Amino acid sequence: MRAVIMHAPGDVRVEERENPTIVEPTDAIIRLSASCICGSDLWPYRGADRVDHTPMGHEYVGVVTEVGDAVKTIKVGDFVVGSFFASDNTCDICRAGYQSRCVHAVPMGSVGTQAEFARIPLADGTLVATPGQPDPDLIPSLLAASDVLGTGWFAAVAAEAGPGKTVVVVGDGAVGLMGVLAARELGAERIIAMSRHADRQALAREFGATDIVEERGDAGVARIKELTGGLGAHSVIEAVGTQESMMQATRATRPGGHVGYVGVSHDVALPGREMFFALVHLHGGPAPVRRFLPDLIARIWDRSIDPGRVFDLTLPLEDAAEGYRAMDERRATKVLLTP
Amino acid sequence: MRAVIMHAPGDVRVEERENPTIVEPTDAIIRLSASCICGSDLWPYRGADRVDHTPMGHEYVGVVTEVGDAVKTIKVGDFVVGSFFASDNTCDICRAGYQSRCVHAVPMGSVGTQAEFARIPLADGTLVATPGQPDPDLIPSLLAASDVLGTGWFAAVAAEAGPGKTVVVVGDGAVGLMGVLAARELGAERIIAMSRHADRQALAREFGATDIVEERGDAGVARIKELTGGLGAHSVIEAVGTQESMMQATRATRPGGHVGYVGVSHDVALPGREMFFALVHLHGGPAPVRRFLPDLIARIWDRSIDPGRVFDLTLPLEDAAEGYRAMDERRATKVLLTP
Repeated sequence: MRAVIMHAPGDVRVEERENPTIVEPTDAIIRLSASCICGSDLWPYRGADRVDHTPMGHEYVGVVTEVGDAVKTIKVGDFVVGSFFASDNTCDICRAGYQSRCVHAVPMGSVGTQAEFARIPLADGTLVATPGQPDPDLIPSLLAASDVLGTGWFAAVAAEAGPGKTVVVVGDGAVGLMGVLAARELGAERIIAMSRHADRQALAREFGATDIVEERGDAGVARIKELTGGLGAHSVIEAVGTQESMMQATRATRPGGHVGYVGVSHDVALPGREMFFALVHLHGGPAPVRRFLPDLIARIWDRSIDPGRVFDLTLPLEDAAEGYRAMDERRATKVLLTP
Repeated sequence: MRAVIMHAPGDVRVEERENPTIVEPTDAIIRLSASCICGSDLWPYRGADRVDHTPMGHEYVGVVTEVGDAVKTIKVGDFVVGSFFASDNTCDICRAGYQSRCVHAVPMGSVGTQAEFARIPLADGTLVATPGQPDPDLIPSLLAASDVLGTGWFAAVAAEAGPGKTVVVVGDGAVGLMGVLAARELGAERIIAMSRHADRQALAREFGATDIVEERGDAGVARIKELTGGLGAHSVIEAVGTQESMMQATRATRPGGHVGYVGVSHDVALPGREMFFALVHLHGGPAPVRRFLPDLIARIWDRSIDPGRVFDLTLPLEDAAEGYRAMDERRATKVLLTP
C-alpha cells in the first residue's frame, strides 16, 4: 500500500509499505476513506519533535475490511470513526471518560494512518460505527471528529464553556476553530477568537465567534480584560502549546474560571506562584475524543454541525508532501488527504 | 494594645501598637477572642518571604466593638468569624464563590490579627456572625474555620473529594489534617494521609484517614499507585507548596482525577509536557474561605465537627515568640494565642 513516511524534519515522502494485518485478536483493519495532516504533525516537521523514517498520521475514517477473532461489535463493511488513541473503553480510566489514558491505550501515531489501510487496535473499544454508509460530503466532518473536532470539543468542555459564559479561544489553527464551534454548540454567550489572520477570522465567525481580538501576549490579555469588565473570561481554550499561549490563556481567565488546554506542550513551565494566585482551574492534555464520538457523529449525521469546513485544502495521498508544506507555510489551515 | 510584630526572620516580638480605628465606613473593629499562628507565617519566619517589622496574623474570631456608618448587617456585640481575605461578597467574582480574589479584596495579613483588636475591612461582606455567643470550648473550632479549616475544605472541594473517591492528602500540617476532615465530611470512601510523624498520623486517623503512607516523593507515588490498582487516586490534596509536593500530588493522581492545591507555592515550576500528558485537573490557590464559612460555622455550632483539635498548643498572646519557635521546630502543629 501507499503510506506517508517522514524521513526527517521537512522530508515527507509517500512510499510503499506492507499492508497491515491482524496482529492481536482485538484488531480491525480499515481501508481509509480519508486521512489528514494534524497541526501536531508540524512539530516533527519543524524539528521540534524527534522523527526518523516515521509513518505519519493518527486521524482516520474508513471501512472495516477485516476483524480479529475477539472483535464482537465492529463488523466488516462498517464505516467507522476512531480517536488518535486506541482504547479498550472498559477500564476504570475509560469509564471515567479519559480514554486517551486508557490503561491499554495505543497511540495511533505509532500506527500511521496517512495511508491506504490501517490496523486499529482494540477495535471494539476504539471504533464507533456510523448509522450507515455516509454521503460523501459528510466524510470531511466525520474525519474532523477523529481528532480536531474531538480535541476542540474536549477543550471547550474542560474550559466549562456553556450558557452565560464568555469563552476566549487562544490559537486560530484547526483545533482553535473547532473550539469556537464547540463553545457555540455548548451554548456559550460570547466567543472571542484571538486571531490575526483574516481568513481564519472569517472561519471563526462562521463557526460562532462573536468577537475577534488581534492582539497577542500582554496586549491580548489587556484587550480581553477590557471586553470582560476587567475580570477576564469565564472559560479559555488554549490550542497552541507554547509558553506564551499558556500564559496568555491563564492571564485572560478570571479567578475561579477555567482554562482548557489542548495544544501539545512544548518547553512550557508554569510558574507556581502565579498559577496559585490566579485561582483558575486548569485541565487539559491529549483529548479523550472517544468520549465524545457518539455525540459528535450524531450531530454530524443530522447535519447540525459542519466541522468539515475546517479543511481548506484537499489533496491526493500521493501529494502529502505538498500538504505538509502548505500547512507549515500557513497557506492551509487543515489538509485532507484522499486515498 | 498588644500585638505581634516580626522584626526580621526568626525575630518575633509582642509590642504596643495603636488601637485600630474605623478608617472606611464599611469597617468594623473586633476585640479578638483568639488568634493563631499559620503554617504560612513560617515562610517569612524562615526567611523564605520578605519581612521587616511586619504586624503578623490573618486568622481571627472575636466580638465586634465598633462599626462604620455604612455597615448594615454586622452589629456591635456580634461574635464573628472572617476569612484571611476581606471581601465585599457582592462582586461577580465573590458571587461565583471566589471571595479571596474579590475585586476589592484586602489581605488580612496586611492588618495583622495576632493582636488584641483588629480592623476588619468590608465588614458586611467579610464577617459571618455566629448564632449567639459561643461556648468557650467552641472558640478554637471557630478560629480554625477562619483559615486552616476553610483552606483544607477548599482543597477537598477543589480535589472533588466525595462518595466513592479515594483521596490522598500530601502534607500533614494543620491544613493537610483539615483536608482529611473535609474529605471525610464530603463522604470520601478512602482517605490516605501521607505523613511520617506519629503524632500527626494519630490526629489524621482521628479526623478520618483510613490509611497512612510514610514514603515521600517517587516512593510515595509508587505506594499510592499500589494502593489504587496502579491507577492513582481520584482526588489529591496538596498542602505544602514545594516543587516536590506538587509533583508528588500530581503524579499520585489518576488521569482525569483532581488535584486541589493550597500550599502557598514557593519556587514551583510545573513542567508543561508532564502536566499535559497527566490529564489531571488542577485547581488551587488562596482559599475562598468566605464561601464555606456559613456551612462550617453550622457544622461546628451543632458539634458535628471538632476542627479545634488541630490546635495542640495554647499560649497567651504575650508568648507568641515561643509559639513561632514551637511550630518552626515542629513541636506544635498549630498554636492558638489567647488575648
